[in-house]
Amino acid sequence: MAVHDVTIEKTIRALLDDKKYQTLKDILVTMEPTDIVAVFEELEEERMPLLFRLLPKETAAEVFAELDPDWQELLIKGFSDTELKEVVDELYVDDAADLVDEMPANVVKRILAQADPEMRKEINEILRYPDNSAGSVMTTEYVSLRPHMTVAEAIVRIRRTGVDKETIYTCYVTEERKLLGVVSVKDLLLATDDDTPVSQIMDENVISVGTLTDQEEVAQMFSRYNFLAMPVVDNGGRMVGIVTFDDAMDIIEEETTEDIEKMAGMLPSEKTYLRSTPFDLFRNRIPWLALLMISATFTGMIITGFENKLAAQVVLTAFIPMLMDTGGNSGSQASVTIIRALSLGELEFKDAPKVIWKEIRTSVLCGVSLAVLCFAKIMLFDRLVLGNTDIMPKTAFVVCFTMAVTVLIAKMVGCSLPMVAKRLGFDPAVMASPFITTIVDALSLLVYFGIASAFLF
Amino acid sequence: MAVHDVTIEKTIRALLDDKKYQTLKDILVTMEPTDIVAVFEELEEERMPLLFRLLPKETAAEVFAELDPDWQELLIKGFSDTELKEVVDELYVDDAADLVDEMPANVVKRILAQADPEMRKEINEILRYPDNSAGSVMTTEYVSLRPHMTVAEAIVRIRRTGVDKETIYTCYVTEERKLLGVVSVKDLLLATDDDTPVSQIMDENVISVGTLTDQEEVAQMFSRYNFLAMPVVDNGGRMVGIVTFDDAMDIIEEETTEDIEKMAGMLPSEKTYLRSTPFDLFRNRIPWLALLMISATFTGMIITGFENKLAAQVVLTAFIPMLMDTGGNSGSQASVTIIRALSLGELEFKDAPKVIWKEIRTSVLCGVSLAVLCFAKIMLFDRLVLGNTDIMPKTAFVVCFTMAVTVLIAKMVGCSLPMVAKRLGFDPAVMASPFITTIVDALSLLVYFGIASAFLF
Repeated sequence: MAVHDVTIEKTIRALLDDKKYQTLKDILVTMEPTDIVAVFEELEEERMPLLFRLLPKETAAEVFAELDPDWQELLIKGFSDTELKEVVDELYVDDAADLVDEMPANVVKRILAQADPEMRKEINEILRYPDNSAGSVMTTEYVSLRPHMTVAEAIVRIRRTGVDKETIYTCYVTEERKLLGVVSVKDLLLATDDDTPVSQIMDENVISVGTLTDQEEVAQMFSRYNFLAMPVVDNGGRMVGIVTFDDAMDIIEEETTEDIEKMAGMLPSEKTYLRSTPFDLFRNRIPWLALLMISATFTGMIITGFENKLAAQVVLTAFIPMLMDTGGNSGSQASVTIIRALSLGELEFKDAPKVIWKEIRTSVLCGVSLAVLCFAKIMLFDRLVLGNTDIMPKTAFVVCFTMAVTVLIAKMVGCSLPMVAKRLGFDPAVMASPFITTIVDALSLLVYFGIASAFLF
Repeated sequence: MAVHDVTIEKTIRALLDDKKYQTLKDILVTMEPTDIVAVFEELEEERMPLLFRLLPKETAAEVFAELDPDWQELLIKGFSDTELKEVVDELYVDDAADLVDEMPANVVKRILAQADPEMRKEINEILRYPDNSAGSVMTTEYVSLRPHMTVAEAIVRIRRTGVDKETIYTCYVTEERKLLGVVSVKDLLLATDDDTPVSQIMDENVISVGTLTDQEEVAQMFSRYNFLAMPVVDNGGRMVGIVTFDDAMDIIEEETTEDIEKMAGMLPSEKTYLRSTPFDLFRNRIPWLALLMISATFTGMIITGFENKLAAQVVLTAFIPMLMDTGGNSGSQASVTIIRALSLGELEFKDAPKVIWKEIRTSVLCGVSLAVLCFAKIMLFDRLVLGNTDIMPKTAFVVCFTMAVTVLIAKMVGCSLPMVAKRLGFDPAVMASPFITTIVDALSLLVYFGIASAFLF
């Protein structure tokens, strides 16, 4: 993929320099819109409008829809009204709604002036729905059929109206806008009798989502049911639009990135990495860094409270990083596993007892193995090889006992916090590594000093 | 989704108890195969075969294909040869190949004995390809057309042969198995003239993958191009199969889970969380835990080397967790951002200078803000509120200076290791939080004691 982009970009640059516009046209016509977008985003701003005008009309609209809003604005500002109308006419209505949503007011005015009245109405309908709802990501362009139509009539209707629709492969059977059933083009084409009414071959058990359903839930249903499109209905069961699988794939990608960012203690980013300024990155990263730094005050206080004893047994200090890190790693293993299972819908709050029991057994296995390994390491390596004779077997025992207890605590905290968060309606993803680490740090130090006090002082 | 499953499961259980088989049939016919699978997996083993026999034939095959291998084996063992043949005949060939791949030898023998010769041949072809290659996930059942066919002939062919195909919506135009072009059912249905030859409306710029292309790359191309299916060709450009979008969605989900697991220091799991035994979890988690614990030996050695000075200035110990955690968090923010961008194809190794320069600026912003905040916190809270008068402004300065330097180092390590890993052909995901934390811990302690030595002793 990469190699291909680089070479094509160079060629296009050279052809632009040489003003070989016909050759450019011939090349562009062979390319996928996505690949054209990739080339565009590497080019200098002033070359874009020229290159854009060389695209075939339908490709132009597809490329336009995929461009970054900054580039879209730039292009629109250079368009004549006729050019703008040509692009807007070719856009799918969901892309047009996205565009209107992103552009500044004066640009929006021009776009709406060029859109035909039907599209203007549909754009406004989509924009009524809250961000991230099914209504806001749907398109209103789908094929609707009537129950009494025959298979032959249905196919004729698809052939007549299908050209503007985002997908023709799933058709919706409606009466007075009520969604009665769903029928695929495959069902229609493979029907043995052309005179069968659609109502006889349609599937009446339609799975649909409401206009306000969260887009993440919609996307999850796509990966569950492998649909090409999902109907969106209003409160009265009237069909208002469809969400298509390509939008669902984008949503999944976006939501996964958001989850991963949250798990690493960042606010979700709006832009791709290369388009983010250092200040954008700073703004996304500093809140959690600052919060977690401040909350490390607790670990500091615990160590300070134990200062005198530590001064007497300085050797204990050397094991603090190992205990804290192992605790943190154990905790994040559990929390990340649970967060992912929750977001894939594999787990629910009701599974909590099963989860906790499983983690207890796992942490006993992990804790005991690590404690044994750690004891061997301390006695053989730290004491014998490094010759650190301050380390008594008793010290090693304290460290290893703490290790086992810390692993248990860490896994308990790690597996339960995400489920509690989910239950309370928060996003479980924020209960990941950094947050868990901070809590586990404090707990593991308390355990360490507690056990040390019992055995060493 | 959840509520729905629970209620249906209860109803089905009750109906099974009451032996209301006709009612059960009526209910099952309204359900999506995926939802039936969800119910099955909650039921007791001995109830499964009975319930399975109540399913309509086509649904039975779909449900069977989605079941866990353990359940599949259980069902097959209870099947008569006729029943087995019925299920196998209805399976898509890629699902049949998966089944053969998962079952023990004696079961495989029975399956192959029931499959018709054509399917047996195709199963064997798919199984020839290495795991995770496009060849191993493709299906050999696609619609192929000839270039000279007219639109009308093409539609007739689709109607005649489409019933066994996993998708009919994308058709492949081949001659002597060479892939010449691709045409969608939409193009065919919307063609204005039924006598146009397929070669005139087909798209000759076909994007395809090789049989050995990694499945992750195939899936990435789906989210890039929004295809319904992707043709798989052999070295000679001959078409051998297709990968469909639903398989691509599964691959994306699977690969993302794998990435997330690796980022949290775990080996990728084979089973879902609820199906994993504690021993499975232990086996996935212990290698990294043990490795990271052992590598904490370095931090221990650094602290031991500095023991005497620490004994003189015990107050320094209290800040170790805060410095280490902030370093770890800063580093994982950078590494996770880069890993995700690499896996989405937004970044490549050639962007390294841009990335490093961006992270330098970001870490100066983060480092300076945290240092200032930390200085205020130490002087106002730790010194005044907690009354810890051991903390001199000079000590606070050493801590905060270390903080700023640690953030810079952590972000450098965090952003560069994943790119280096990618460059060397390793999976960047292992260069995430736990690994970075261990390195950053050691580095931040060295910086801390270095700066402390310069200013305090």
